[in-house]
Amino acid sequence: MEIIRDPAEMQQRALTWKKAGLSLGFVPTMGYLHEGHLRLVDEARGRCRRTVVSLFVNPMQFGPSEDLDRYPRDEAGDLAKLEQRGVDAVFIPSQEAMYPEGFETIVETLNLPNHLCGVRRKGHFRGVTTVVLKLFLCVTPDVAVFGEKDYQQFLVIRRMTADLNLPIEVVGVPTIRESDGLALSSRNVFLSPEDRLRSTAIYRALVTARDMVRRGETDAVTVRNEMLRILEAAQGRVDYVAVVHPQSLVELEVIQGQAHAALAVFFGSTRLIDNMRLIG
Amino acid sequence: MEIIRDPAEMQQRALTWKKAGLSLGFVPTMGYLHEGHLRLVDEARGRCRRTVVSLFVNPMQFGPSEDLDRYPRDEAGDLAKLEQRGVDAVFIPSQEAMYPEGFETIVETLNLPNHLCGVRRKGHFRGVTTVVLKLFLCVTPDVAVFGEKDYQQFLVIRRMTADLNLPIEVVGVPTIRESDGLALSSRNVFLSPEDRLRSTAIYRALVTARDMVRRGETDAVTVRNEMLRILEAAQGRVDYVAVVHPQSLVELEVIQGQAHAALAVFFGSTRLIDNMRLIG
Repeated sequence: MEIIRDPAEMQQRALTWKKAGLSLGFVPTMGYLHEGHLRLVDEARGRCRRTVVSLFVNPMQFGPSEDLDRYPRDEAGDLAKLEQRGVDAVFIPSQEAMYPEGFETIVETLNLPNHLCGVRRKGHFRGVTTVVLKLFLCVTPDVAVFGEKDYQQFLVIRRMTADLNLPIEVVGVPTIRESDGLALSSRNVFLSPEDRLRSTAIYRALVTARDMVRRGETDAVTVRNEMLRILEAAQGRVDYVAVVHPQSLVELEVIQGQAHAALAVFFGSTRLIDNMRLIG
Repeated sequence: MEIIRDPAEMQQRALTWKKAGLSLGFVPTMGYLHEGHLRLVDEARGRCRRTVVSLFVNPMQFGPSEDLDRYPRDEAGDLAKLEQRGVDAVFIPSQEAMYPEGFETIVETLNLPNHLCGVRRKGHFRGVTTVVLKLFLCVTPDVAVFGEKDYQQFLVIRRMTADLNLPIEVVGVPTIRESDGLALSSRNVFLSPEDRLRSTAIYRALVTARDMVRRGETDAVTVRNEMLRILEAAQGRVDYVAVVHPQSLVELEVIQGQAHAALAVFFGSTRLIDNMRLIG
């Protein structure tokens, strides 16, 4: 497994593979890898002859009051997992390589961030699209794989990729969960044992919503209120809970055709997000 | 000479050349080609084994009150000139291919547009960087050639290219002028015979400024005032005249080291821009 830190060297490596006719799959990550990330790697490996994973904690997608400083890191552990999983190359650019002196270019989707996390985390998706475009241009993959746990991020990146004519297939992989339903996340390590138990309310709220809709409930407010009740009963501090259209992310009043539930909840000081298709 | 209208087909064509080890030069244009454009083509041909020119009048870089509707077009004439000049392929995407239903992604440099034309033409450079990135991703050139007549545009694109890790060398070509000094521009056709004569004041103002600085003038206001005087004496309606740092475009008070003059002036309803290095 190669470790590449220089963007130009990464481009050269990818071009070598391209010239040899080898398809390239890519999994961008912020590191501190868990089984959710590794399933994305498996997906990329299943689709392509070569697989690259990037490790880069992107400061541009964190707000000034967010958890950039405490975001967990474990490069050695990550490399061991990726080697074991059969990855061909790991791209680990430095902050200086990604955001050199005088850097001033941003990439942004104008509509999708006006919903859900985008409203609460101003500038977050600008940071995501900017870094992902840069990583795409360094790695030049044929396929890029993202987790559907970050559902809005997946939609934003798919939109950006299409809008910019990038010849990349953006693939989403269903969320991997603990046995009690909690979605895997690098941030789960911050939960106290008590909050870890309480956080199972997230999955309960989502499944309850889906069951309500399956049983015929079409009023989005009723569904949302039940989710709120479950989360607050578990002492979750709700950032948002929404029933939205799964493509536009516009909030629904009436559930018919397609609907998706998305939420962000704090347990202690840790903000967790999750989502689930309700119907369609 | 190939004519390619589909972005994906353009990407395939470029990839074929890349695999064959043929370097690719690119000249993006809005068509209605004059000798200035054709010098850019010569530059690209001199540097690369294959040359692509794009013809695309980009609506996103025109403001609502600007001249998109009357911007001149002559596809047949352009193709004849490019064939004659030895271009390998012309990329002519449709509006629909470039901005399909639901398009919402923009690319922007945050600082450089806060000067000169960027201040007067809100959103103009966002339109330029967005379309040029898209064209770059369709054509995937090794070298891209721009005219220094649009000096701020050249700086913005060079900045964007570096910031996004695009493996493209951005080359600027000195402005081509008529024998009386007027910079070649597709918009010159709009000038009445009287305004065409008056517009020579632009070159006179720039050369006068350069001569003043060469003779030791270091006060930017004095230089700027003399340029204003020359332009207004010719009945030019000045949009801006500025003496700036040639990289940051920040306006100078004292001229020392490096300085660049840039201006935009209306003659009749036609807005002309030009610029010149004063020193350094």
